[in-house]
Amino acid sequence: MLYGGDYNPDQWPEVVWEEDVRLMREAGVNLVSVAIFSWSRLEPAQGRYDFAWLDRVLDLLHRGGIAVDLATGTASPPPWLVRRHPEMLPVLADGVRLHQGARQHYCPSSPAYRDEYGCHVPACWCDVSAADFRAWLQGRYGTIEELNRAWGTDFWSQRYSDWEEVIPPRRTPTWPNPTQSLDFQRFSSDALLECYEAERRELLEHTPGVPITTNFMSFFKPLDYWKWAEHEDIVSNDAYPDPADPDSGLIAALNSDLMRSLARGRPWIQMEQTTNRVNWRPVNAAKPPGLMRLWCLQQVARGADGVLFFQWRQSRAGAEKWHSAMLPHGAPEHSHAWLEAKALGADLAKLDAVCGSRVGAEVAIVFDWESWWALELPSKPSGEVRQLDQLRAYYRHLFDGNVAVDFARSTDDLARYRLVLVPNLYLLSDQAAANLNAYVEAGGTLVMSFFSGIVDPDDHVRLGGYPAPFRELLGLRVEDFLPLSAGQELSVAFADGTRGTGDLWSELVTPDGAEELASFDGGVLAARPAVTRNRFGKGTAYYLATRLDSASMARLLAEAQAEAGVRPTWTGPAGVEAVRRDSPRGRFLFLLNHSEAEVEVPVAEGSDELLSGKRTASSSLTLPPRGVAILVEPGGAP
Amino acid sequence: MLYGGDYNPDQWPEVVWEEDVRLMREAGVNLVSVAIFSWSRLEPAQGRYDFAWLDRVLDLLHRGGIAVDLATGTASPPPWLVRRHPEMLPVLADGVRLHQGARQHYCPSSPAYRDEYGCHVPACWCDVSAADFRAWLQGRYGTIEELNRAWGTDFWSQRYSDWEEVIPPRRTPTWPNPTQSLDFQRFSSDALLECYEAERRELLEHTPGVPITTNFMSFFKPLDYWKWAEHEDIVSNDAYPDPADPDSGLIAALNSDLMRSLARGRPWIQMEQTTNRVNWRPVNAAKPPGLMRLWCLQQVARGADGVLFFQWRQSRAGAEKWHSAMLPHGAPEHSHAWLEAKALGADLAKLDAVCGSRVGAEVAIVFDWESWWALELPSKPSGEVRQLDQLRAYYRHLFDGNVAVDFARSTDDLARYRLVLVPNLYLLSDQAAANLNAYVEAGGTLVMSFFSGIVDPDDHVRLGGYPAPFRELLGLRVEDFLPLSAGQELSVAFADGTRGTGDLWSELVTPDGAEELASFDGGVLAARPAVTRNRFGKGTAYYLATRLDSASMARLLAEAQAEAGVRPTWTGPAGVEAVRRDSPRGRFLFLLNHSEAEVEVPVAEGSDELLSGKRTASSSLTLPPRGVAILVEPGGAP
Amino acid sequence: MLYGGDYNPDQWPEVVWEEDVRLMREAGVNLVSVAIFSWSRLEPAQGRYDFAWLDRVLDLLHRGGIAVDLATGTASPPPWLVRRHPEMLPVLADGVRLHQGARQHYCPSSPAYRDEYGCHVPACWCDVSAADFRAWLQGRYGTIEELNRAWGTDFWSQRYSDWEEVIPPRRTPTWPNPTQSLDFQRFSSDALLECYEAERRELLEHTPGVPITTNFMSFFKPLDYWKWAEHEDIVSNDAYPDPADPDSGLIAALNSDLMRSLARGRPWIQMEQTTNRVNWRPVNAAKPPGLMRLWCLQQVARGADGVLFFQWRQSRAGAEKWHSAMLPHGAPEHSHAWLEAKALGADLAKLDAVCGSRVGAEVAIVFDWESWWALELPSKPSGEVRQLDQLRAYYRHLFDGNVAVDFARSTDDLARYRLVLVPNLYLLSDQAAANLNAYVEAGGTLVMSFFSGIVDPDDHVRLGGYPAPFRELLGLRVEDFLPLSAGQELSVAFADGTRGTGDLWSELVTPDGAEELASFDGGVLAARPAVTRNRFGKGTAYYLATRLDSASMARLLAEAQAEAGVRPTWTGPAGVEAVRRDSPRGRFLFLLNHSEAEVEVPVAEGSDELLSGKRTASSSLTLPPRGVAILVEPGGAP
Repeated sequence: MLYGGDYNPDQWPEVVWEEDVRLMREAGVNLVSVAIFSWSRLEPAQGRYDFAWLDRVLDLLHRGGIAVDLATGTASPPPWLVRRHPEMLPVLADGVRLHQGARQHYCPSSPAYRDEYGCHVPACWCDVSAADFRAWLQGRYGTIEELNRAWGTDFWSQRYSDWEEVIPPRRTPTWPNPTQSLDFQRFSSDALLECYEAERRELLEHTPGVPITTNFMSFFKPLDYWKWAEHEDIVSNDAYPDPADPDSGLIAALNSDLMRSLARGRPWIQMEQTTNRVNWRPVNAAKPPGLMRLWCLQQVARGADGVLFFQWRQSRAGAEKWHSAMLPHGAPEHSHAWLEAKALGADLAKLDAVCGSRVGAEVAIVFDWESWWALELPSKPSGEVRQLDQLRAYYRHLFDGNVAVDFARSTDDLARYRLVLVPNLYLLSDQAAANLNAYVEAGGTLVMSFFSGIVDPDDHVRLGGYPAPFRELLGLRVEDFLPLSAGQELSVAFADGTRGTGDLWSELVTPDGAEELASFDGGVLAARPAVTRNRFGKGTAYYLATRLDSASMARLLAEAQAEAGVRPTWTGPAGVEAVRRDSPRGRFLFLLNHSEAEVEVPVAEGSDELLSGKRTASSSLTLPPRGVAILVEPGGAP
Repeated sequence: MLYGGDYNPDQWPEVVWEEDVRLMREAGVNLVSVAIFSWSRLEPAQGRYDFAWLDRVLDLLHRGGIAVDLATGTASPPPWLVRRHPEMLPVLADGVRLHQGARQHYCPSSPAYRDEYGCHVPACWCDVSAADFRAWLQGRYGTIEELNRAWGTDFWSQRYSDWEEVIPPRRTPTWPNPTQSLDFQRFSSDALLECYEAERRELLEHTPGVPITTNFMSFFKPLDYWKWAEHEDIVSNDAYPDPADPDSGLIAALNSDLMRSLARGRPWIQMEQTTNRVNWRPVNAAKPPGLMRLWCLQQVARGADGVLFFQWRQSRAGAEKWHSAMLPHGAPEHSHAWLEAKALGADLAKLDAVCGSRVGAEVAIVFDWESWWALELPSKPSGEVRQLDQLRAYYRHLFDGNVAVDFARSTDDLARYRLVLVPNLYLLSDQAAANLNAYVEAGGTLVMSFFSGIVDPDDHVRLGGYPAPFRELLGLRVEDFLPLSAGQELSVAFADGTRGTGDLWSELVTPDGAEELASFDGGVLAARPAVTRNRFGKGTAYYLATRLDSASMARLLAEAQAEAGVRPTWTGPAGVEAVRRDSPRGRFLFLLNHSEAEVEVPVAEGSDELLSGKRTASSSLTLPPRGVAILVEPGGAP
Repeated sequence: MLYGGDYNPDQWPEVVWEEDVRLMREAGVNLVSVAIFSWSRLEPAQGRYDFAWLDRVLDLLHRGGIAVDLATGTASPPPWLVRRHPEMLPVLADGVRLHQGARQHYCPSSPAYRDEYGCHVPACWCDVSAADFRAWLQGRYGTIEELNRAWGTDFWSQRYSDWEEVIPPRRTPTWPNPTQSLDFQRFSSDALLECYEAERRELLEHTPGVPITTNFMSFFKPLDYWKWAEHEDIVSNDAYPDPADPDSGLIAALNSDLMRSLARGRPWIQMEQTTNRVNWRPVNAAKPPGLMRLWCLQQVARGADGVLFFQWRQSRAGAEKWHSAMLPHGAPEHSHAWLEAKALGADLAKLDAVCGSRVGAEVAIVFDWESWWALELPSKPSGEVRQLDQLRAYYRHLFDGNVAVDFARSTDDLARYRLVLVPNLYLLSDQAAANLNAYVEAGGTLVMSFFSGIVDPDDHVRLGGYPAPFRELLGLRVEDFLPLSAGQELSVAFADGTRGTGDLWSELVTPDGAEELASFDGGVLAARPAVTRNRFGKGTAYYLATRLDSASMARLLAEAQAEAGVRPTWTGPAGVEAVRRDSPRGRFLFLLNHSEAEVEVPVAEGSDELLSGKRTASSSLTLPPRGVAILVEPGGAP
């Protein structure tokens, strides 16, 4: 199991380095990321290089038995490069140019700067980017006529007569062309991916065989990680849930499940997280005792084979000096963060058997970046329908019920899942529509929410009645959208006599074969369907015409799970998360107590518990607040 | 009665056009607006024209008996023009340039673009506009010395020694010169009007006899529609009240009354509105069944002789594809919007007799754009006094009481009105002051609220004690302004023993002849006048030194109406609006039920009801929820 | 006692000037500030001067016996200068250039404009400023290597290889380098001070012996007034507390105490304030009767020897025409502001004996601009800890308890104070740390709140455990910061059995010699210290690990005062403020009733009361609402 953090020795005098290695060994650290922000040290002026200090650092780490994840150092270009190439600085949509003095001050399309990729500046509106955007569009559309068709330029007289007239969606008097905006998001993701690829090509030539990765940032909207993940040898992630958010444990799980899904089930690495506080929120809550460990072991539970932090030693100076680290500003022996980091190192050292094992899921949530981008462009019936809100409204119930779930693209083969959930899929390709239809027809169970199946990849409405590609699948037609104002709630009556509410959105649905599971009660939509179920081929498709309250949603998903034959990983007291990793070498049941109270949980008597190294002596086990047990299950022997 | 909508056939394949005309005929459409955004189609490159498709569209419509309102198509310049003339793009006060990709991306003063006028970019701060602004100022002031006087440039050392030093009010370190800002608003309205005039001159030459209009946008602050209306052959309007706003019915009425007033009583056209939802609010509420019809008939009631929508067929692509239309994305036969549009067409076909009739009003509300602009410039005793809030606080009670009301300029002849209301008139000319004084002196009744009569057209304070031009008229002096914080309320005691409250504003008033109708109760202003009445010449002037609560305001206006001899159009149950149109050919009483309940209303037995085609058989009539009746009154025969 | 206001005769026709002087005499005015915004009048074009009108004004005032505070007039450059030197216009961090049309439109580093200093534009990011910033940095650091060390440029690869690469902190993709930001604040304060110094050098040459000042603006963050005050012959201030703020009386006192402290105890002048309303808040509340007088006499009580207003005569035009003045728009005889100004003149004329006397304080609050700047840079454990909030949380209890207090720099000699308060001192020099330690060691009493002693002047964390320079002094170490969310409160139990709450911030404190006065109760910090006391040398140091509720804070400060032997100036009913000024010529006890009720206060029988001119006949005196008494105390005879 990999363990460690970002290590920036260049920010410290050399005398500290020996102490660093000594303490790393004490904490069980076996991997550190080096030279992430060292360009200006390694190349202090154009063409003048200084690798001597880095050689000394690497030798020292090597002697200490600590492996190195060597960074390319391109995330922050040095001032001398900016001075020579001021045109490499990025430009915002309103023409404002961003400057050096922080990091990531580069235009991804800049020829002078074509090495790296970013989180602060995921797009650039400068003239260089405009030319690159045009080239990208020519690749996508071939002719200007085809671009005119795709962008719908007859609307508002936007027809282009020449490629040179095309520009990025700079600031306009009113709403810009949505397809232009959508293509610019596609282009910007690709432009950064091209930076990564340029680095990758260099590395493959100079260090063949060394695996290459770049940190993802969980649900990061600007980059289509499905495309990116195909270019990574191993998926790695940064995640910083807010401990002050009561949902942070759930969000942490969600991020990990996304990473495992991007890695297509293979193990991944948690590359960055904080031991305690971050520095960039208005108020940066500290993690209470045990939470760092809990979340790290949750990452392992959900498929990580390595757990690292930003960063090893807390900075003295600069914009991140108030970001916690494994080693604090003060004496380590007085620091909870350090003591917990050391203990965690000892825990992780016991988990090598877990490495390489997989998490199996019977449920998939469909999630596409392109649909996310299109859904959240302006000028919709409601601007309040957000992709991640929809996604979490489904995920919450799987998390609470200990049901393992993967994320999947709309075009992925879904045959191996018993249940497929579609919280929202506003934009989709014909291929995706056929895929989802075929999945149900072949016997699958699917749950879909409103405003799905609406536009094609050009963001053109699919005509003929909403949701055009799913009307047969769902057995209904949607005749009108009635978005709801903030605070507006509709009453919903279920066929089984229970009642609930819907908010955010409602629709005028006319069944065309579907069975009504619930209907709106009162108002303009009185007695119209709110939730339906339709038999299609050998399978079943549910449809939700509103956002249900949480209890109703839980009941509905439980019904769909039962219908699909989905079983939870484990059943125990609320607040205890259960995840299973599986391999030919063993089955590992992770039980994670998110509550602040001691909890008694049922276990198989005689199981080996990895963290304590003990065998369970009865059919229950006590988990302390934020405590974790990892049970080797009897049937899991290789 | 005109009926139809915007028609953008260039956004659809030609095969759809035949179907369009067939459905237009089915819906009773007799007028469509064509080619609003077709410049890039009609002139795809500089000097290359293509009118063939437009000819085919016009022929098709003509054969279908559908008239055409042909647009100049200048609202959205094509990309090739922008590429040739990048200097035509508009610039904001902070120097940010706006780009193509939406619409209306032009500087109104651009010589390369001097054809059109706008809503998204009502002003431009670029260098070309600066030169045009200087020319406009030279026209207004003649000498730089006179500009220095008017702008008060001795304040903060802003004295100009040369015209070339003068610029638009670009972003400044702190509050800009208010007269400069005010003149820039005047100039910007005129610069756009000059664009319109340039088009008008062309049209008068090429299509003499064809009436010319440009859509107004209800209470649109940047353009002085009093000036604009003088240049239109027929007044037309766009209006989009929010169905989720409980005041939307009132606001819809207000917009229509403004249009009728701008048209100086002549019929006008509702040129754009939505059948159901718009797309540009955060949440775009749908219209419940019947509301579209109710508001359309309200427009007719308040003087419209035509009712059109944006747009005929809902777009598939582009920024407005989620704006509802007469024809939906899905099958028309399943669309409520289409079914209601068809029914409305049938209704309107019965109202030709109404065309040309007039609405008579005994009450006028004084409303000037220039005073609105000046009032809402920064640096006032309170920035919370807003022109439209003040206006609505008066209008509400006239609307609720079915009292017909016109809007009037402060310099208009007011003799034909029994009652004149002045919600706020911060800025006014000497001529306006004399006009209002003369109106009361000759026997008129006037009600005026605080902070009126304060500055002259240069935004210079009228010295000698507030409100200088009205001190005799009102019989008082205002010694100090005491604006109130949000939530701060003062108690107000009326002479008749009733009590109320005031908020937003209070004043230290000393009567000088006026009678106290109410006084403040407690606090610094204890026992000082809150509402006064003064006999002046043969008339009466009321003054309000605070913003009264709604009930007190209703009582006060009822008293003033009684004093002036103003009678309501009709008296019936609350929630039912009544408006009368009158002509030599007949008198038409519109009764519009805004409530969601069925309502019994009194009618003259034996009246013809136009929509049902029936004669009333008793002295009452049942209006369904959102139902409308149009009664031909016995006395209205020609 | 000086009395008067800003006088802008150039905004009025010459006929008004005679009347001005007559009314000034009537009001007892003896000093006016002239020509503040007269540059464009005095030099209407480059090199063309017109002093004739100013000569006439000065002669007229001289004949009326009114002294003149002659302004340099450089606060608002004339348009012709801008036209000749457009590069003198200031530029914001995002590249937006600010224009003429208001005032203070200049870059402080502009060679074309190097005369003046500002409030609206305290910094400029243009290229000229960049060069000046580099020169300033070379002065501070000598070598680029030293700058790299101080700015911690190894973080995020920001290392500079050449001075020319260094720029101001322009808009960056994410948080800029904090030391760069801090140095830019230092530089900007110094750049404006250099403008002032350039003017001062000219004046010392041309008008030697005439005292020079420039208005401070109370707690104005951009300028380090400690440094500025050393360059002023007399300290003067502008202050505009909001009458609608219930704390405004306290804030007014705070501002005055700061001025007296900046003047190092010498008398100062209140140069600007409003008689009634300002014009630049969203809602500009009027002062109730008596409040203007109360605050003016409060300024005198707290050390002012002069009281002036902005401005003499209210403007007719321009951005400040709604700012109240001594003379109103209307007839003076009907204006409360004028009548009160006249009465105040009469009052002040009785206070010449007070001039030159001093306020003695036994308590000091440590307050440094540099620490303020550093504390409020982004990227902290909590962004909600604000310097002035912390300061007021202490000051409130001294104000309420009539305890005189000075402000002091952290490096000042503190020996003469019995009690030193440190609400927050995030950044401090080694010298300051030694100074505070020495103060307590020698017997002083000190109270310090959390997050003090954290960084050095480079904004580098002081390593070795927080708060490194005060761990011995306080007898504890802070092991972790646990900032609290908005609304989050911790329970605090005091050793004496009382209970309170803490919010905003908490810390994990481990005592190392200190005594626990209170501890947190429940939660992660249960039983950990919240308030401690430590004996150090001959003195005592208190430490607060959270922000206490107001009642707990009052008790704690009362205890510290008792410990230190601090006595209140006077004890009487709540709402009555008491301040004493002292001189060889007399002791003057000011009693100021802030309440809206009449109050009975204890006095020494037989004292002379200056305002009434009467001797007190009993041991109590009645103060009307907002009334003031100034008692000459028996012991104060020279």
